[in-house]
Amino acid sequence: MARRTPTIPEATVARLPIYRRALVELDESSAINVSSERLAEMSGVNAAKVRKDLSYLGSYGTRGVGYDVDYLLFQVSRALGLNNDWPVAIVGSGNLGQALANYRGFTQRGFPVAALIDVDDKKVGATVHGIEVHHVDRLEDLVAELGIAIGIIATPAGAAQAVADRLVEAGIQSVLNFAPVVISVPDGVPLRQVDLATELQILSFYQQRNAASDR
Amino acid sequence: MARRTPTIPEATVARLPIYRRALVELDESSAINVSSERLAEMSGVNAAKVRKDLSYLGSYGTRGVGYDVDYLLFQVSRALGLNNDWPVAIVGSGNLGQALANYRGFTQRGFPVAALIDVDDKKVGATVHGIEVHHVDRLEDLVAELGIAIGIIATPAGAAQAVADRLVEAGIQSVLNFAPVVISVPDGVPLRQVDLATELQILSFYQQRNAASDR
Repeated sequence: MARRTPTIPEATVARLPIYRRALVELDESSAINVSSERLAEMSGVNAAKVRKDLSYLGSYGTRGVGYDVDYLLFQVSRALGLNNDWPVAIVGSGNLGQALANYRGFTQRGFPVAALIDVDDKKVGATVHGIEVHHVDRLEDLVAELGIAIGIIATPAGAAQAVADRLVEAGIQSVLNFAPVVISVPDGVPLRQVDLATELQILSFYQQRNAASDR
Repeated sequence: MARRTPTIPEATVARLPIYRRALVELDESSAINVSSERLAEMSGVNAAKVRKDLSYLGSYGTRGVGYDVDYLLFQVSRALGLNNDWPVAIVGSGNLGQALANYRGFTQRGFPVAALIDVDDKKVGATVHGIEVHHVDRLEDLVAELGIAIGIIATPAGAAQAVADRLVEAGIQSVLNFAPVVISVPDGVPLRQVDLATELQILSFYQQRNAASDR
């Protein structure tokens, strides 16, 4: 029987990778225990929220001692499904696709980039950071042969939806979209959309507020 | 006297660019009005939250009609400070820096990329997507000469903190960090950190949950 996964709020899920990064850093500096206050500070979250979030994983820490770094790292990683490797295919081998293929930490965090895929015959057959570029005609075969779990879309906006449709049809488990366009996938297929300009707009808000209060 | 900017919750600020994207799409399809339900659906947020978020901008819509698309787009853009242009410099002209320099929508959304900056003499003087690559020795001059508002860090992890320090020292207004390392800046300097592996970890969580419920 499958282990029951408790329901964890979406906002908590989004913070787990941030806690995990802090815990890896603590582990590398040989810390044994960590207080919720320290973890909060490292993660930019308040301590009460850290404690609440971790309670969803069944982690409560010990008064006066805090959390065991090793064990908490194990728990967070397990909750995130990082005890498995999830092979990734990147569709689009332009600058963004290449940057993603070379992004430190995809492989070390359990997301080995198994293939780059492109529509341009001139790019097919090349090797980018050790990863072969395949023709998009082989997309379905590659997903099956390489056991691709996650499809990353790094194509121009106009191609993104069609690529998403093919990835889903080929049996991919989830989709990460970097193309600057909103795409849709069937219910039940996890989808994250990263719009790089969103972050700039958020900065712009705070900048403008700072400028107004300086006047 | 400066117009007083009302206090808008952080989570609301983070959703404003998402509403804006939906409104631009509606505007391009010549829609005159939009209901909070439709806006919610396009933004992946529930309708009550949309209404609450927009109320911070003083926007309440009209019962049975909804919001005026044009005017709401103006209000959201103004709140985000997008009625100004904010020139951007990208430090690091590797694949990621080049991908960002070529990202559709930075310029059209008011973030013209004014300069690429690199430490590698072999890259200096080149032109990438119409943008000149300058030597990092000129960073301070460039910030002043070009009126750079936002510094984007696309360097390897090891260089990121030193670059952030120089950007802040040079008078930059805010920092967007893509290097896979946590950096710090003085209080009052808006900072956003984008960790591309975070999104994959969030997908991994939902994938694992789906896999468990299929078993």
